[in-house]
Amino acid sequence: MSRIYFDNAATTSLDPEVLTVMMPFLTEKFGNPSSVYSYGRETKLAIENARKSVAKILNANPGEIFFTSGGTESTNTAVNAAIRDLGCKHIITSSIEHHATLHTVEYLAHSGQAKLSYVNLTPNGHVDMNNLEELLAGSPDRTVVTLMHANNEIGNLLDIKAVGELCRKYDAIFHSDTVQTVGHYPFDLKNTYIHFLNGAGHKFHGPKGVGILYVNENIQIKPYINGGSQERNMRAGTENLYGIVGFAKALEMATATYEKDSAHINGLKTYMGTRLQELFPGVLFNGDTNGRSLYTVLNVSFPRTEKSDLLLFSLDMAGICVSGGSACTSGASSVSHVIKALHNGKSDSLVPIRFSFCKHNTKEEVDAVIEKLKELI
Amino acid sequence: MSRIYFDNAATTSLDPEVLTVMMPFLTEKFGNPSSVYSYGRETKLAIENARKSVAKILNANPGEIFFTSGGTESTNTAVNAAIRDLGCKHIITSSIEHHATLHTVEYLAHSGQAKLSYVNLTPNGHVDMNNLEELLAGSPDRTVVTLMHANNEIGNLLDIKAVGELCRKYDAIFHSDTVQTVGHYPFDLKNTYIHFLNGAGHKFHGPKGVGILYVNENIQIKPYINGGSQERNMRAGTENLYGIVGFAKALEMATATYEKDSAHINGLKTYMGTRLQELFPGVLFNGDTNGRSLYTVLNVSFPRTEKSDLLLFSLDMAGICVSGGSACTSGASSVSHVIKALHNGKSDSLVPIRFSFCKHNTKEEVDAVIEKLKELI
Repeated sequence: MSRIYFDNAATTSLDPEVLTVMMPFLTEKFGNPSSVYSYGRETKLAIENARKSVAKILNANPGEIFFTSGGTESTNTAVNAAIRDLGCKHIITSSIEHHATLHTVEYLAHSGQAKLSYVNLTPNGHVDMNNLEELLAGSPDRTVVTLMHANNEIGNLLDIKAVGELCRKYDAIFHSDTVQTVGHYPFDLKNTYIHFLNGAGHKFHGPKGVGILYVNENIQIKPYINGGSQERNMRAGTENLYGIVGFAKALEMATATYEKDSAHINGLKTYMGTRLQELFPGVLFNGDTNGRSLYTVLNVSFPRTEKSDLLLFSLDMAGICVSGGSACTSGASSVSHVIKALHNGKSDSLVPIRFSFCKHNTKEEVDAVIEKLKELI
Repeated sequence: MSRIYFDNAATTSLDPEVLTVMMPFLTEKFGNPSSVYSYGRETKLAIENARKSVAKILNANPGEIFFTSGGTESTNTAVNAAIRDLGCKHIITSSIEHHATLHTVEYLAHSGQAKLSYVNLTPNGHVDMNNLEELLAGSPDRTVVTLMHANNEIGNLLDIKAVGELCRKYDAIFHSDTVQTVGHYPFDLKNTYIHFLNGAGHKFHGPKGVGILYVNENIQIKPYINGGSQERNMRAGTENLYGIVGFAKALEMATATYEKDSAHINGLKTYMGTRLQELFPGVLFNGDTNGRSLYTVLNVSFPRTEKSDLLLFSLDMAGICVSGGSACTSGASSVSHVIKALHNGKSDSLVPIRFSFCKHNTKEEVDAVIEKLKELI
């Protein structure tokens, strides 16, 4: 049996067309983009064209786009800058954020640099907007709100426009971890109240090791990684040239076929959800699966039995790649912080599996996985 | 005229053999190394093999090697950790460090987190070891010493064994920015008193966007980039898989031919220095060129004239890639902080040019550049 890859929220395959665009920069065009000679200016131009392209797609200004080593570095940069450079002394986040956010805010709170509040969640894992407003209204200090656009495990989508408007009302800084949505949804940053967002190339068939940080032009921050004057003095270090060029190409490709791809992927998710419900009594969907939800992610809990306990292992043996939670939380045999937060201590009786799809997946693959699950459960 | 690339201290070409080793991870082997399924374990294994290989070459333990996005991130991580996690309240550095170090220590000093001392330099740009000991002995607080192994502009080499022994004597933390020497010199870290050093793949024909941080096993630090549990909870973010694999391969290749390559490159440097002295009266060599000096770098000052003022530009027009200083300091028309520090205000009358060589350069290229310089000056 050939491999079925249903873990696209962890990482995606690099598109061959993206690699083709990267190849000249992996071979003959290696000049340092910060050099003064024409051979360096050629690579500098490639980076600036990538920046313009990314900015245009997100409806931002090129001067608001900074290339980083990935989504995690971008989140660290944004949240730290909010505290260090923008006068925020209070952080509002949720308990189901990615660890890039949670570990960063925990460190800032633990070291006494900021007060930390966790916004309440609704039973299906959405941010309780009334509670968010209460927290904002009750804060004597300037606040940074950091809430992810789409939850990487359960797929719940945040209404970033609505959260942005609340932040505007209370003069808060707003960062959204958009790693799961950049390349998957259209953005209109000139018409969204938001200060920071981030993306990672490998989440939409681009390269690993490269990401972006959007920094709204109305705020001024210092770099998190100090050194050379790359990225207009905002992110030091010799540029990951091929990564940057690949990031832009992958985003261009994702944007060009967004409507077709999202319809196809959403069809797979809906079909798989329906089939699972028909065939497996007791199956639970984690998050607002059929509501405001990322079309790429279907997170399912199976009742815990001797057989389902081995489900991840058995699926792996059958060449099916899925995950129990986020790839970033290793030791995935333990239930993730996101599922725990949703099930209030009842998570031990459940075996959560995240299926996450991409444009290359097919209905036949879903059928094959369903057949294997019938065997295994 | 075809291009002559004498700017290898800025960045080097990616070796085709290195790219070949990276290619499977840019195509079919894209699994997230933190995944639990076998397809992710395969890429995890590639990373751990890379780590073992790098550790062996540096005579370190694999548990002491962490992959990062590059030398600059590594320096930021090390210096910040010394202050935040290791109790250092005093930083000793030099005024001719790379900006990755200087801007980091300046930020730490400016924000009141540490006292900052600059060690005296000898007239030819070496660290004054007596002054270093005075500074260490006179510090009431624990000190971190951060001094680069080889200066990226003038090539001066630090005696890291001797500095390490001074740090041992005064219980100081020692970080060395070894970005210009990893891949160019042998290291024996088990027998060197040092806590942190860093490397960048693109300085020795490896990929851009990837580096290492060595953290001595006797110290415990927290991550600088918080998030997922990658790199044993020390550096979060989905791993730059192909970068890591390429880094190790490039280091293996550099090590295998180190003796031959360094003899060849040193021959080019010596030959070019001799020819310049013969042909251009008034030429100055910046740094300890014929003494303790990186064999890849030859930094020369020409007397400032109308013609030499345009030297970088004219060489560029002739297809010759050299730099005025470090590529990381853009606006290279102004004289760098390193050259200024060496010439005490007299630097305005000089036009410094850094020639930096690699194994692919030839004596014929040196001759061609010399001929062009004769025309231009």
